[in-house]
Amino acid sequence: MEKTLADLGEFGLIGQIRRRFPAPEGVTGIGDDCAVLPQKSGLESLVSTDMLVEGTHFLRDGISPYDLGWKSAAVNLSDIAAMGGKPMATFLSLALPADLSETWINAFLDGYAELSGRFDVPLLGGDTTASPDRICINVTVLGESPYGRSRLRSAAVVDDLICVTGPLGDSAAGLKAILTGLERDADASTLIDRYCRPVPRVAEGQELRLNLGVHAMMDISDGIGSDLQHILDASEVSAQIDRSAIPLSLALKRVCARQGWDPLALAIGGGEDYELLFTCTRQAEMLICVPHFVIGKITKRSFSSSAGPDWQVSGFDHFKKR
Amino acid sequence: MEKTLADLGEFGLIGQIRRRFPAPEGVTGIGDDCAVLPQKSGLESLVSTDMLVEGTHFLRDGISPYDLGWKSAAVNLSDIAAMGGKPMATFLSLALPADLSETWINAFLDGYAELSGRFDVPLLGGDTTASPDRICINVTVLGESPYGRSRLRSAAVVDDLICVTGPLGDSAAGLKAILTGLERDADASTLIDRYCRPVPRVAEGQELRLNLGVHAMMDISDGIGSDLQHILDASEVSAQIDRSAIPLSLALKRVCARQGWDPLALAIGGGEDYELLFTCTRQAEMLICVPHFVIGKITKRSFSSSAGPDWQVSGFDHFKKR
Repeated sequence: MEKTLADLGEFGLIGQIRRRFPAPEGVTGIGDDCAVLPQKSGLESLVSTDMLVEGTHFLRDGISPYDLGWKSAAVNLSDIAAMGGKPMATFLSLALPADLSETWINAFLDGYAELSGRFDVPLLGGDTTASPDRICINVTVLGESPYGRSRLRSAAVVDDLICVTGPLGDSAAGLKAILTGLERDADASTLIDRYCRPVPRVAEGQELRLNLGVHAMMDISDGIGSDLQHILDASEVSAQIDRSAIPLSLALKRVCARQGWDPLALAIGGGEDYELLFTCTRQAEMLICVPHFVIGKITKRSFSSSAGPDWQVSGFDHFKKR
Repeated sequence: MEKTLADLGEFGLIGQIRRRFPAPEGVTGIGDDCAVLPQKSGLESLVSTDMLVEGTHFLRDGISPYDLGWKSAAVNLSDIAAMGGKPMATFLSLALPADLSETWINAFLDGYAELSGRFDVPLLGGDTTASPDRICINVTVLGESPYGRSRLRSAAVVDDLICVTGPLGDSAAGLKAILTGLERDADASTLIDRYCRPVPRVAEGQELRLNLGVHAMMDISDGIGSDLQHILDASEVSAQIDRSAIPLSLALKRVCARQGWDPLALAIGGGEDYELLFTCTRQAEMLICVPHFVIGKITKRSFSSSAGPDWQVSGFDHFKKR
């Protein structure tokens, strides 16, 4: 029988594309939050693109058009934030069924404009086309960093601290609250808001980029459990994580206590928090003004055991001092 | 009853988006072949993006995956060519159903790689995701021009000549040949090839950009009938077109003669030729080495009559001299 995409898998497909399209010398291609292209001006261009398909990423009844517009822009700006870059412009492709209401479209554009306006990022182009049935959205974002200063996933160094810029798991709990029809009290609403209207850490990313002791950086989109692995693989290191140091919001703790949910499982396995995950030296960490939480450290890669992080470690000296 | 996208129309939607997202000072946003962003280095960045949806733009059985891959890359490079720019990189988003065969995907990537390789343009990123059913493809292309030198649609000047870089109508006739199941003799195959594997005029666009007497430029994607109108509207001018000067290939003439098709209707109304349409001074035209055909001239906009071009004119002095 003929092999299909289901046999190949998404990572198999990405691997094939990556082998077939190697990046030219001096350019970062497939495999980081953004591609990085040197300009001739002491700057480098950052580009990232994301596709959202109705039925795969969202249901038309599951998210308001305003929130979908907001989120479409937010997740792309987050990729620029993950490099420490400044977002310069977005480009929006929309495939829309002809029977979609004008109200829906206007609300979508309202959300997109609100998030873009907060970060002063213009929409400079795109494509609009008819779709036979499903809504399909593609956003491309263009950003900029000083030359050689974008933070790659491959830059983590042994003994670096591992940090995140905010509490994890809220977004996953928000989605769970929507799916289980949880009553929308203040706490549940906070979580749902974190899922529907994530705020990309654009200013935080740029401030972290100014600190030369900040090494690897990425945004948390799939969940720190799998996202951290990308840094470890790209940097050829391992990690020790103190599960008790993973920041959890009060709203998450309270809703989980009431519902019997496991907050750490949501924080580690759940995605779409769009906080930044970065590694830095101990000295550099003391100079960081951006709110952040140290959750572990980078260790030498041990090829005898699994190359994954050790999630069971509890308490470094560093944490005890805090 | 609630208004839908069908009431608004594509141009209504684009108009709404354009009003809502004005481009900042010094930047060309929505409304040309590419957005144009000044860099700090004497260059400007060009960005364009295109979405192709199965069922709207192609049928899985109607075009080979190789040709679809080729064409996805080609139509985007053509947008950079239309500005006179140099394509620097593309970014490919793919939403694919899980039952799609690996053979299909490989052939698609082969075609994409072949066209990209011919123009030495690396694929530097993208997104791969599952689609519940239809294939959706989005390509974004990044290009570069010397600062202030990209050719916009708005630059046509009264008395400019109107030129195209090659014969028109082949692609539309190729599609018609496929749809009507025409026997694939040499002529039909030539036309079908022009439809399935258009070659973007990248080198031609850059050479035309070096000539300062070349004013407005765009690529012919919808058909010169409607594409020329974009230049006229953006430049606030009118045009006279000599229908007898519109270049037609021998293959088109022969197939049309045999089938009783109207070659001029295909050349004017049919799209996807991806030749360049440009305006230039008479002096500049004499210095152009790129193959091209003069088909008319720009005239003062007359607001008393229709602002559209006059397609009936036959023979300027200029043509008689040739």
